[in-house]
Amino acid sequence: MRQIGRWTGLAVIIGLAAGLASAFFLVSLAWVTSLQTNNWWLLLSLPLLGGLVAWLYQRFGTNVAAGNNLIIEQLHNPDSAGIPLRMAPLVLLGTLLTHLGGGSAGREGTAVQMGASLAARIGRWWRLPQAEWRLVVMMGISAGFSSVFGTPIAGTIFAMEVLAFGVLRYEALLPCLVAALVGDGVVRWLNVAHSHYHVASVPDLSMIWAILVVAGICFGLASSAFAIWTELVQTWSRRWLPNPILRAVVGGGLIVMISFLLNTRDYNGLSLPLLARAFEPQGVVPWAFALKLLLTGLTLGVGFKGGEVTPLFVIGATLGSTLAQLFGVPADLLAALGFIAVFAGAANTPIACVLMGVELFGSTLLGPLMLTTCIAYSVSGHRGIYAAQRVGWAKR
Amino acid sequence: MRQIGRWTGLAVIIGLAAGLASAFFLVSLAWVTSLQTNNWWLLLSLPLLGGLVAWLYQRFGTNVAAGNNLIIEQLHNPDSAGIPLRMAPLVLLGTLLTHLGGGSAGREGTAVQMGASLAARIGRWWRLPQAEWRLVVMMGISAGFSSVFGTPIAGTIFAMEVLAFGVLRYEALLPCLVAALVGDGVVRWLNVAHSHYHVASVPDLSMIWAILVVAGICFGLASSAFAIWTELVQTWSRRWLPNPILRAVVGGGLIVMISFLLNTRDYNGLSLPLLARAFEPQGVVPWAFALKLLLTGLTLGVGFKGGEVTPLFVIGATLGSTLAQLFGVPADLLAALGFIAVFAGAANTPIACVLMGVELFGSTLLGPLMLTTCIAYSVSGHRGIYAAQRVGWAKR
Repeated sequence: MRQIGRWTGLAVIIGLAAGLASAFFLVSLAWVTSLQTNNWWLLLSLPLLGGLVAWLYQRFGTNVAAGNNLIIEQLHNPDSAGIPLRMAPLVLLGTLLTHLGGGSAGREGTAVQMGASLAARIGRWWRLPQAEWRLVVMMGISAGFSSVFGTPIAGTIFAMEVLAFGVLRYEALLPCLVAALVGDGVVRWLNVAHSHYHVASVPDLSMIWAILVVAGICFGLASSAFAIWTELVQTWSRRWLPNPILRAVVGGGLIVMISFLLNTRDYNGLSLPLLARAFEPQGVVPWAFALKLLLTGLTLGVGFKGGEVTPLFVIGATLGSTLAQLFGVPADLLAALGFIAVFAGAANTPIACVLMGVELFGSTLLGPLMLTTCIAYSVSGHRGIYAAQRVGWAKR
Repeated sequence: MRQIGRWTGLAVIIGLAAGLASAFFLVSLAWVTSLQTNNWWLLLSLPLLGGLVAWLYQRFGTNVAAGNNLIIEQLHNPDSAGIPLRMAPLVLLGTLLTHLGGGSAGREGTAVQMGASLAARIGRWWRLPQAEWRLVVMMGISAGFSSVFGTPIAGTIFAMEVLAFGVLRYEALLPCLVAALVGDGVVRWLNVAHSHYHVASVPDLSMIWAILVVAGICFGLASSAFAIWTELVQTWSRRWLPNPILRAVVGGGLIVMISFLLNTRDYNGLSLPLLARAFEPQGVVPWAFALKLLLTGLTLGVGFKGGEVTPLFVIGATLGSTLAQLFGVPADLLAALGFIAVFAGAANTPIACVLMGVELFGSTLLGPLMLTTCIAYSVSGHRGIYAAQRVGWAKR
């Protein structure tokens, strides 16, 4: 009983801290994005800002540069000194600078890292024993993920599912749920808005299951392609440009060049307008998913900061829109399914993703969501965006 | 690729077989229930029918009497000879006789046992290697559960979650999903109807979370009470009446007596009308949940056949209705939450239950569902309706 009281207290405090951090992040990210959108010349500063981010991490953050992988590693081998508090301001600043320059990145990495590092600091204040360290990190992940996307149920499961492939342990179901609900509550209470998506067309599953199977396979291949491309960029650029600052400057320059060649800003930053258009009939060009994949892998691979998840949403939704045109089904349906399934295949968190789909799109989509998400998860194989994930139970 | 084709073929065949069995079962159960309801004197035959069920199992079914526990045991130690085909007709007949006499029992046990034993027979035909035996049993469970309740997503997860406490392995995500979708599809295609429930009132979670926490605790205690009471009846009756036929006759007589004392048939059989009334304001008496719990434990404890899940739905929904009156919140809200949470606490399958809640009640209830279900799961402890479940990860 006393233990339950203690966990609940801890979960509420971590939820409050992570929720406040996410709210501040979401507001400042919106402001930075509007600056970027309204001042075209800011894109030219991307190489400079990339150098700055790399310098910041080289100077202050060598022990937190592994980001989400450091956090997953901590879930496997918890250690009270494992996640320094400086991870929070560094990833926040790095992400804002990346988006100010128009890098193509996301936000879940930032929110999860802020949540986990704040939680670790709170755990140190609380003088928790070693055995409970995992719990604290999980609560931080839950609260961070939940509050940045407004999806507390998905956030709860994500924290327990991200640890390993193919297995979900309920070791912290209630504490994570409380942290996630409080984190999400804080953001809502502060009136910080999340994006909304609307899916009007939900045909009977029995009519379109073959299309969904093919779409699920494509989504899974896109997840793999994203993971492979990001890793390739990282490996190549490290081999040819060992200096991290130079690497980010050159990478930034490349992104600026590509953006000018494309003559559109659709693929810079979070690409939320592009994401919204993917839900409209023929709202995006058929190769939009490939361009977003290209630019995001470049942005993250050379050392800019931010998450992978929002870009994965965009890649999935635009790929869904392309497939919808090909198969002659409504764009919003496949956009919503791709949104979730590509993320599931890349993060290897199918149950959290299905629940996120229900939180974002409602329950009418549950059957198609489950089918495409499970297929994408199976197809994407033992490769994903989190290298520190272990194999809990092999896929087949 | 060839492997995927083989699993898919196997899943489709198992889904078809289990779906047909469930459809036949649902139709015959509805017919038996209407016979029971329209002929009051049939209740008097309950002791006789109980003796008949016990005799049938003593004569033909000693190796399948363990029912769901035998199946869970098979998931731990798969064995191609482990689940005989006779389990299917025996549990079907036993359940129909139980409901004909007015015993208080459910249907998921029947559907799951039919699905698993048909799947095992199909697997033997297919000459599967030992290593794939688990997969076959899981597909049978998925398809049986999915088709009897019309909830394919919950059925898929249930098959993987029921194995052990606190852990969910995705070892058979896609094959189970295909079997579940096909099983459910068969039942729908045959136009066999499932019950529908409607929840109109979904208040903001932040206004009623304290009520939900208390309700979740009550639901978890009800889960424990059900498991304890059923086990007590079993232990006591076996000690005092070692002969299984005599045990069922005496138990049947006791149920008849109680039913006449109560002067209502509300608690006999599936109690679906009672379940529907639990969703209406003050639709049931405040002690309804206790009476249903009493009669179901008696029915199943002395050897009648059928599932535990529908009675758990009824106990949860009526307890929810009672709590709603107490707290002054809408009855349908707490009835829906109790429906799911008491089952989750007793079966130790929280994620399958939350997904079932979404399939039955829609996504607006997701937050409250997750909260009450997780609390009930935590409160109910390491005791449940399936003795063969192992502890995968201790609750806390």
